[in-house]
Amino acid sequence: MKETIQTAVIGVTGYAGAELARLLLRHPRLRSTAPVFAGRVEEKDLARGGVPLVEIHPQLADSGGNGKLKLEPFSWQLLADRGVDVLFLATPHEQSRAWVPEALERGLRVIDLSAAWRLTEARNRAVYAFEDEGSERAAAIQEQSVYGLPELHRERIDGARLVANPGCYATSVILPLKPLLTAGLVDLDRGIIADSKSGVSGAGKAPTAKTHFMYAADNLSAYAVFTHRHTGELLEQLGLTADEMVFTPHLLPIPRGILSTVYVHFKEPQTRAGVAQVYRDFFSSCPMVRLYDHALPQIQYSVRTNYADIGFQLDGGGRRAVIVSCLDNLLKGAAGQAVQNLNVMLGWPEAEGLE
Amino acid sequence: MKETIQTAVIGVTGYAGAELARLLLRHPRLRSTAPVFAGRVEEKDLARGGVPLVEIHPQLADSGGNGKLKLEPFSWQLLADRGVDVLFLATPHEQSRAWVPEALERGLRVIDLSAAWRLTEARNRAVYAFEDEGSERAAAIQEQSVYGLPELHRERIDGARLVANPGCYATSVILPLKPLLTAGLVDLDRGIIADSKSGVSGAGKAPTAKTHFMYAADNLSAYAVFTHRHTGELLEQLGLTADEMVFTPHLLPIPRGILSTVYVHFKEPQTRAGVAQVYRDFFSSCPMVRLYDHALPQIQYSVRTNYADIGFQLDGGGRRAVIVSCLDNLLKGAAGQAVQNLNVMLGWPEAEGLE
Amino acid sequence: MKETIQTAVIGVTGYAGAELARLLLRHPRLRSTAPVFAGRVEEKDLARGGVPLVEIHPQLADSGGNGKLKLEPFSWQLLADRGVDVLFLATPHEQSRAWVPEALERGLRVIDLSAAWRLTEARNRAVYAFEDEGSERAAAIQEQSVYGLPELHRERIDGARLVANPGCYATSVILPLKPLLTAGLVDLDRGIIADSKSGVSGAGKAPTAKTHFMYAADNLSAYAVFTHRHTGELLEQLGLTADEMVFTPHLLPIPRGILSTVYVHFKEPQTRAGVAQVYRDFFSSCPMVRLYDHALPQIQYSVRTNYADIGFQLDGGGRRAVIVSCLDNLLKGAAGQAVQNLNVMLGWPEAEGLE
Amino acid sequence: MKETIQTAVIGVTGYAGAELARLLLRHPRLRSTAPVFAGRVEEKDLARGGVPLVEIHPQLADSGGNGKLKLEPFSWQLLADRGVDVLFLATPHEQSRAWVPEALERGLRVIDLSAAWRLTEARNRAVYAFEDEGSERAAAIQEQSVYGLPELHRERIDGARLVANPGCYATSVILPLKPLLTAGLVDLDRGIIADSKSGVSGAGKAPTAKTHFMYAADNLSAYAVFTHRHTGELLEQLGLTADEMVFTPHLLPIPRGILSTVYVHFKEPQTRAGVAQVYRDFFSSCPMVRLYDHALPQIQYSVRTNYADIGFQLDGGGRRAVIVSCLDNLLKGAAGQAVQNLNVMLGWPEAEGLE
Repeated sequence: MKETIQTAVIGVTGYAGAELARLLLRHPRLRSTAPVFAGRVEEKDLARGGVPLVEIHPQLADSGGNGKLKLEPFSWQLLADRGVDVLFLATPHEQSRAWVPEALERGLRVIDLSAAWRLTEARNRAVYAFEDEGSERAAAIQEQSVYGLPELHRERIDGARLVANPGCYATSVILPLKPLLTAGLVDLDRGIIADSKSGVSGAGKAPTAKTHFMYAADNLSAYAVFTHRHTGELLEQLGLTADEMVFTPHLLPIPRGILSTVYVHFKEPQTRAGVAQVYRDFFSSCPMVRLYDHALPQIQYSVRTNYADIGFQLDGGGRRAVIVSCLDNLLKGAAGQAVQNLNVMLGWPEAEGLE
Repeated sequence: MKETIQTAVIGVTGYAGAELARLLLRHPRLRSTAPVFAGRVEEKDLARGGVPLVEIHPQLADSGGNGKLKLEPFSWQLLADRGVDVLFLATPHEQSRAWVPEALERGLRVIDLSAAWRLTEARNRAVYAFEDEGSERAAAIQEQSVYGLPELHRERIDGARLVANPGCYATSVILPLKPLLTAGLVDLDRGIIADSKSGVSGAGKAPTAKTHFMYAADNLSAYAVFTHRHTGELLEQLGLTADEMVFTPHLLPIPRGILSTVYVHFKEPQTRAGVAQVYRDFFSSCPMVRLYDHALPQIQYSVRTNYADIGFQLDGGGRRAVIVSCLDNLLKGAAGQAVQNLNVMLGWPEAEGLE
Repeated sequence: MKETIQTAVIGVTGYAGAELARLLLRHPRLRSTAPVFAGRVEEKDLARGGVPLVEIHPQLADSGGNGKLKLEPFSWQLLADRGVDVLFLATPHEQSRAWVPEALERGLRVIDLSAAWRLTEARNRAVYAFEDEGSERAAAIQEQSVYGLPELHRERIDGARLVANPGCYATSVILPLKPLLTAGLVDLDRGIIADSKSGVSGAGKAPTAKTHFMYAADNLSAYAVFTHRHTGELLEQLGLTADEMVFTPHLLPIPRGILSTVYVHFKEPQTRAGVAQVYRDFFSSCPMVRLYDHALPQIQYSVRTNYADIGFQLDGGGRRAVIVSCLDNLLKGAAGQAVQNLNVMLGWPEAEGLE
Repeated sequence: MKETIQTAVIGVTGYAGAELARLLLRHPRLRSTAPVFAGRVEEKDLARGGVPLVEIHPQLADSGGNGKLKLEPFSWQLLADRGVDVLFLATPHEQSRAWVPEALERGLRVIDLSAAWRLTEARNRAVYAFEDEGSERAAAIQEQSVYGLPELHRERIDGARLVANPGCYATSVILPLKPLLTAGLVDLDRGIIADSKSGVSGAGKAPTAKTHFMYAADNLSAYAVFTHRHTGELLEQLGLTADEMVFTPHLLPIPRGILSTVYVHFKEPQTRAGVAQVYRDFFSSCPMVRLYDHALPQIQYSVRTNYADIGFQLDGGGRRAVIVSCLDNLLKGAAGQAVQNLNVMLGWPEAEGLE
């Protein structure tokens, strides 16, 4: 491996991109070389070599070198000239779908934050209507793509060329369920419910009727009931059929954070200690999962961290559980997880730069 | 019946009390006689005959007579002197438990907003640990108490002497479920989930760690999982056992409003039209329920109204439904429902003063 | 005057339009005839005669007739056919500027919520760059336009054909200052400061970068410093020069409400009682102004009312005052004031339908 | 100087204490030795040696050593046993007033976040009614106390034994004004206005009527007009008399952040470039001040940083300025500034651990 790793970020103007910039700029192993930030630059800014990053994200201004960072006009040549090793795509899925093939051909390793390469089953991809769906090239790339949830796929991520960073909702539902399913505790016939609530940053930076302050503030709404795009990820990663689970997202009047309330029936009565042990065993080598013993996690504790927090309650008879998971949709649900994947991909300590 | 009805409110200082005052003051059939507001008055305010209501709730000040309204020192004699017919108790359950017997003896009709007289089963009352639990007098009063959900018990409320106004969460969960259960559609073996989210006013006016702005804002938390006090109401009114339902409340970072997301499995596949008809039939004569045909209700639409809003989605196979209900916890969940009960109790149009 | 008055509203889709609809629908003198709601209707909705109002504003659904109300395709003929007497324009200023002449020619009385006809001085209108600026017709219309702040111009509004409803910020700054200026108390040489803070609804319903939840929430920002469009209204109505006042608006992370903190130096030391008397005298016949004696107003008390709340503090020497005014930008700052103007215009009680 | 510095924090349970813990735990020069956290510990927790810090502040839990940190029962002996060099007091002013003398006698260096030792003038201290006011000992300690605003007093803080960390409002008003006053630009006869707005964390962790979510949310209120306790700090540090300035604090419905809008008249007309140069010169060696050239700062950009952000606008004639400053009341307004003071006190780079 090279002494120093050079990263590049496409899509720094969005919310996940801003967090990614912040994390990469302070990552202990990346300090010597700031990421290349590239993307679409307007004509008028070409003369000054791009747009200063602190004009886009004033909060990144510091007394050191951040003032010199720029969003530069993208070209593959630019990445080559700068010796980029790892490319982060914080771009819409159409764009990621289009760019990843060339990036891989050019020898770049890619961590893609979109849904472009997450799904192995065609019926789950249908909702995205990818233009190259069914092509051999797309199939070959999907084949080598690794779903970037380190708690499940650490070994395949280590050394991967293409990591498909999971969706924020998907992460918040897969992590609390996978240990119980793997341990064979859950009665699937009675169905699993995942009732999720997300802050507004999950809806992206584009101003729309639903991201208007007047729509989101003082409100709560369910949406995409039975039809949310992350459902495919959930089912594939959990090995469930659509009949075995209901996933309902809600829009919370807060900037960031997801709380998922997950309901399961057990096949046999369980004890609190037993269930706790199942979780501890599953996550024993997972630095970014925090298990709550005597309380339930809340959004306020996980926001602005890269942790996924998990806690649970059993009913009196030990036949049902309510599991609560919390995470920051922009960190463990996006940019933080991407950096965690970078760490695993390169064989660095998994939590480096994330605590 | 008397020409004009005189009301009194105990507990006007709280959030529900303030809404009750507002509603009664503008009620078309009560305009001629403002309610008597009575309660504990500090020594220093006795000289001026009590505390001006607009000092307690500045938003009630108007250019008319509100400035003269006072919170007066409570005594039974005061109520008698003023010719009070109907007494609203917006008081803690301990106080309602203690006062209702005397009120009834004195010939007052009572609408009690607390949980004191809502529950018919002793095991469900256990959580409140009433001092007079098991006494004959308490049993006799409970016997005549009517659970004040007009959509279910309109006929018994009409003419009742004591109405036990439902809990806010209970209202938001009973209304969306009762029609489906009554129609026999629901597969109880697979369990019902009610995932509810409430604004902070539901936690009351007392400053606590959990009502602190810094705790509630930008946060979401589940609480009282498997143990919330409103569970007994739900089960009694829905005719369910504790094994057949899970109810999970969450604290939302908004001032007011409840959204409940309710999950059921059907015994047999249903059509959207069929389920919609079940709801329409059940609520055909219910002016305070709004059914949503082509969308789901949201908190913003029901807040500051007395409506319970209900909408639903079926899965592709018609085997499962997600039902969403919304209401204002201080209105349909408390003060508005109390006025609705007043209307029904006295044979007035049910929505009078509430639209 | 006709027995019943028929109103029409153009611009019901916006925030002020929604409030206007709500107020007019419940106005005691207008109950027999719902307003005509007219505007741009898409092709696909023409077949059903327009868009049901409750699709646009679900919160307006009731158990009565609101479900039948429609946003109909606008034409002058429609207004004539329905016998419209008074036209409310809750439209952008360009549109109001273009439509008012024809409305007046057709004999309609107009209450215009935009800035189109508020300003008598050309230099203050310059910021709006009206297309017909300088024309004789525009001058003639401006001549008959009355600035619709009833607390200042009640007599001219009574009987007016065209009322220019004031800006929300302007209302919140003019009302606390006018009594002190009229009484000659203020030392203008030392300058007046009006530091105003407004909720997001003031920025309108169009989704923009600044109305995005992620921009407004958990934030506060000053904007349009020294350049805000309402400055002209302030100066004209207060009789001040630009050198004598600074007005700074801020965007508050709340849905609605304005609080203005106003700073003045007195020419001579004043007493609290003396200043209070100045305010009482000035507003003695103003039902929609509430004066605070022993406290300062807060946004929470005026929101969802049509009141302008005013309170003040003097420094120890009585030489300076901080005056705080609060109002709801959509009510006293827009739709409520428009209805107040309707009342005055038609000789009805000023607060009718507003308390 | 010792190789490694040992710190201790009293008052870690509050909001500023939590931030202080977070900053000290990640400070590059303090990593080898976690701070001692000491305070009042309940009887029941003595057996386990205190309360785990992550029980008090769950957000501090990590995969490393934070789980072992404890809030231990305070004693001077404990501090001595651990070899504490620098003591942070995040305590009420009464407690700081009482403890600082002994801490200094025991050879500890102290950074006190309260107002206990900030004020040199007795009349300004009067509002705090210190018990030892007027004593020789208190006078001697006050004499050696340094007001801990590094941008003004860097040289005296370097090497100080007692640093009085400034108030949050005071910091946000002093920084934007001091450069203009020092340069002699301001016309004091016409008065300075500082209109400040603070998030709720500034009101402390104790649940009160004013920190209740229902009071603060969707609201804005001015308070302590002409009487706020930070006024004394402002006047002393700015060299102004009470007649020359008005300071008005407001409570914002956000968790954290202060924005101060400051109004000055200039003696002579100024240019934007000239004023900008005055600021640049004054803060040329101040890494924690960010000057805004072409925009105004907003709360969102400074929150969760230790920066004080400053921007301004002049009127057309260059005779008046509106200056806007923003900072995080818990960081640059409290804990971050305390760490900045630690850095300066010990001769470390001023921004170490703060960017």
